[in-house]
This record gives sequence, structure tokens and C-alpha cells, in this order.
Amino acid sequence: MTYCVGLKLNSGLVFMSDTRTNAGVDNISKFRKMYTWQVPGERSIVLMTAGNLATTQTTIGLLDERSKVPAKRQPSLLQVPTMFQAAQLVGRTLREVIAEQSGGEMQASADFSGTMILGGQIAGGEPTMFMIYPEGNFIEVSSDTPFQQIGEMKYGRPILVRAYEPEMNFAQAVKLLLVSFDSTIKANVSVAPPLDVVTYPSDSFTFEGRFRIEENDPQYQAISNGWGAALRSAFASLPDVNLEGYLDSDA
Amino acid sequence: MTYCVGLKLNSGLVFMSDTRTNAGVDNISKFRKMYTWQVPGERSIVLMTAGNLATTQTTIGLLDERSKVPAKRQPSLLQVPTMFQAAQLVGRTLREVIAEQSGGEMQASADFSGTMILGGQIAGGEPTMFMIYPEGNFIEVSSDTPFQQIGEMKYGRPILVRAYEPEMNFAQAVKLLLVSFDSTIKANVSVAPPLDVVTYPSDSFTFEGRFRIEENDPQYQAISNGWGAALRSAFASLPDVNLEGYLDSDA
Repeated sequence: MTYCVGLKLNSGLVFMSDTRTNAGVDNISKFRKMYTWQVPGERSIVLMTAGNLATTQTTIGLLDERSKVPAKRQPSLLQVPTMFQAAQLVGRTLREVIAEQSGGEMQASADFSGTMILGGQIAGGEPTMFMIYPEGNFIEVSSDTPFQQIGEMKYGRPILVRAYEPEMNFAQAVKLLLVSFDSTIKANVSVAPPLDVVTYPSDSFTFEGRFRIEENDPQYQAISNGWGAALRSAFASLPDVNLEGYLDSDA
Repeated sequence: MTYCVGLKLNSGLVFMSDTRTNAGVDNISKFRKMYTWQVPGERSIVLMTAGNLATTQTTIGLLDERSKVPAKRQPSLLQVPTMFQAAQLVGRTLREVIAEQSGGEMQASADFSGTMILGGQIAGGEPTMFMIYPEGNFIEVSSDTPFQQIGEMKYGRPILVRAYEPEMNFAQAVKLLLVSFDSTIKANVSVAPPLDVVTYPSDSFTFEGRFRIEENDPQYQAISNGWGAALRSAFASLPDVNLEGYLDSDA
């Protein structure tokens, strides 16, 4: 599996993805699931992928080929005028790849399916983010739902729901994502470091940071080791439950 | 969906289950998913169910009929001499019901499938717990894996992984389960209170407590409201991440 999260903050966008892929538990590999495109000063685009690796890599390949040969008739990620059109382009490409790989039948079967998070900013528009489904359609992030997750999203969701704040700075957001990823990594062997990260400040049209956090990274280790103890003291800080009142009743 | 957890502690067993069932999000109901049988002083048995409600209710109905008519040739939950045989009986019954409901074809399809946690103690044996699969087979809890979950288990798993201790008393265990259930309930509308709870002290052969915690229960509310703040301060207590060291690299 995979775990990728995109956060929309007041100050910009932050993306994190893991790098583990597996075809069965006896066939584990490390693959990048985060891709970036940019024209400095004009556009910065991030795409994260989950699902069938052949599907997502082919989709990226098609998107890349198109962006490398601007003379082609198809619009490319470096040419589309808005993030909305970028999402349409990625959605169409993803849907076509799935249709082709599943033998011409248009069905997003589990085997060939894929899901993506597309985020970034193109000059003239606001920074934004889209979750793109295997059917090619997509939904945009909003202030009600300011983060998007794909892959093994359930383990790491409660901490996002409780601790995310749109006012967070990038360092706080990366820390939050490390906790969310660590909870997932501790509970599910199909998600694993290294973790790829991108930070994008609004209206900068350039990535502030684009880096990889290795498993032995001291800051990641400090958070991973500290979170267990912090959770246990958070748990201890809650009021004790008194069972006396319940024991009389017999449901 | 459903969320049920069984914990094996040094001092006994604790079980908690939610009560929400849904056939689509527009058809939500409240059903008990926890069933108990006992012969005071001789055996105490708990069964929690997840999956297709017709399957699980029919399975419980068959198990109940059998236990109510002791003259029948089939062994019943009130007659089997060991928890292992109880697990075999439940597994066989569950598999038969699924086979019958899916039209005679022995396939545990998603539609008719079900999963169960069986726990308790029968005189002469130790308290124990089994996870029972739709195929009728089962695995026993162990000191390496001292708790079992069925249903929407991912949201509430990280806190169990981090905060469970076999030395916990029942009040601490119920508090831990309330946190795990609250994390799930906050993230997934298919799991909801009231919550059914059973506490079983080892070698007592009687349930210490068998009660229901309603949504407006003051202790549940205190934990639910407190956990968000506790998580946020646990998060704040972690060392800040310094992005400077990463920003130089360009992965």
C-alpha cells in the first residue's frame, strides 16, 4: 500500500508520501510516489500517487512525456492555465491508463486502480489541491476539509482530525505529518520510510523545500520515540473511569 | 460497519462493541453486537459480531436455539467442555450460515460475510479469546497479540498499540477502549454509541460488569472532550521540527 497526505495551510501547501510498495508481503520495494513539476515564478505542481504501481507510473510517464514535448497537441502540466485544468488532465490520463491496462473495459478494478493527490499553484490562481479518483473525476480541498489522504489513511487520520490547524507553519505541519505517518507505520507494514516531503509557500511559485526524511533521521526518530510516551501521558492525563456506576446496571 | 475490541489483561477479559449498523448511509439502525452466555460458577462466554447483520443474527439465533434445547444432538455453547470447542462450534455455524445465505456456494463474499470475537472462560481452562473468520477458522489471542479487533479497526489501533498494558485494571482498560472507540467514532460515521461493555475477572465464572455506555454518559463525554485537548498537548510536547537541515537537500 501507500500513505500520502496533502495539507492546505494558510501559508501554503505541505505534502508527504511514503515510499513502500508491495506485491504481496514477500515482494517489497521502494518507489517514489511524489512527483513535482515547476516553472519558477509561474507554476509549482506536486502529484502523489497510490494504487497499482504500473498504473501510476504509466500515468506519470504520459504526463511527463507530454510536458517534455510541448509541440504535441495534448495540453501538458506545464501548459495548462489553471490547477483545475491540471486536475482534468491528470484525471483523464489516469482513467485512460486504467482503461487500457484493464483490457479496454472501462472498469476501475482493484487490480489496476489508482488514486492521486494533485496540488500546487499556477500564476493567476490560488494554491489548491485535488483528490483524483480512478474514474478521472476529482474533488477540491476546502476550508471544511483542508487535508486529503490517499492509501492507508485510517490509522493516521485521528491525529489529523484533532491536531490540524490552518495557522500552522511548515515546521509544525511537517511535525504533524510525521506523527500521522508514524502511527500508520507502527500499525501497518505496507507503509514505510523514507518519507518524501514538499513545502510550498503561497504565491512563491517555487518549492521552499523538497526533501527526503530517512528512517534513521534524528528528528523523525525523536518524534517516533517521543510519540509513544506522549500518547501514554496524554492517556494518563484523562480522568479515570469509575466503573462503579455502571456495574449496577445490567444491559 | 462496526467496531469491536476484546482485550486480554492479566486480571481478565474486557470487551467493547458499538451498536451502529447501516445498509447504506441512508439506512442506519442500532443493533446489539455483543452476546453473552453463562452458567455461573462454571462458564462465561462473550461473542461480538461484525459484518452482514442477517448472517451474524442468524448465527447467534442458531447458537441460542442450540443452547436452549440441550437435548439436541449438536453441542451447544453451554455444553462444550473447552473454549477451543466453543470457537469450533461458532466457526462452523458461521461458515454454514454464510454458505446458506450466499446460495449454497461456499464463498465468503463481502455481502454475506461476517467476523466474530469469542472470549470467556470454561471451568478447567484459562480465560481466552478467539478471532473467528467467515471461513470458520480462528486464531487465539496470545501475549504477543493481546487484543483483537473486528470491523473498522484502523482508526483506533494506534492508541491500543501504544497504550495497552497487560497490567491494566478494568477501569483503565475501559478508559483505553473509550479513547480507541472515540477516535474511530470521530473519524467514521459508521461506528457510533451507545457502547456495550463486558468485564470478566479471571476464574470468577461470572461477569463483573455487563453494561451500556450511552452517548451522553458523563464519563464518556469527559474522555471524548478531553482526548482532543490531550492529543494536542501531547503533540505540542514533542520536540519541534527544524526544517533548515532538510531545505539544503533537494531529493
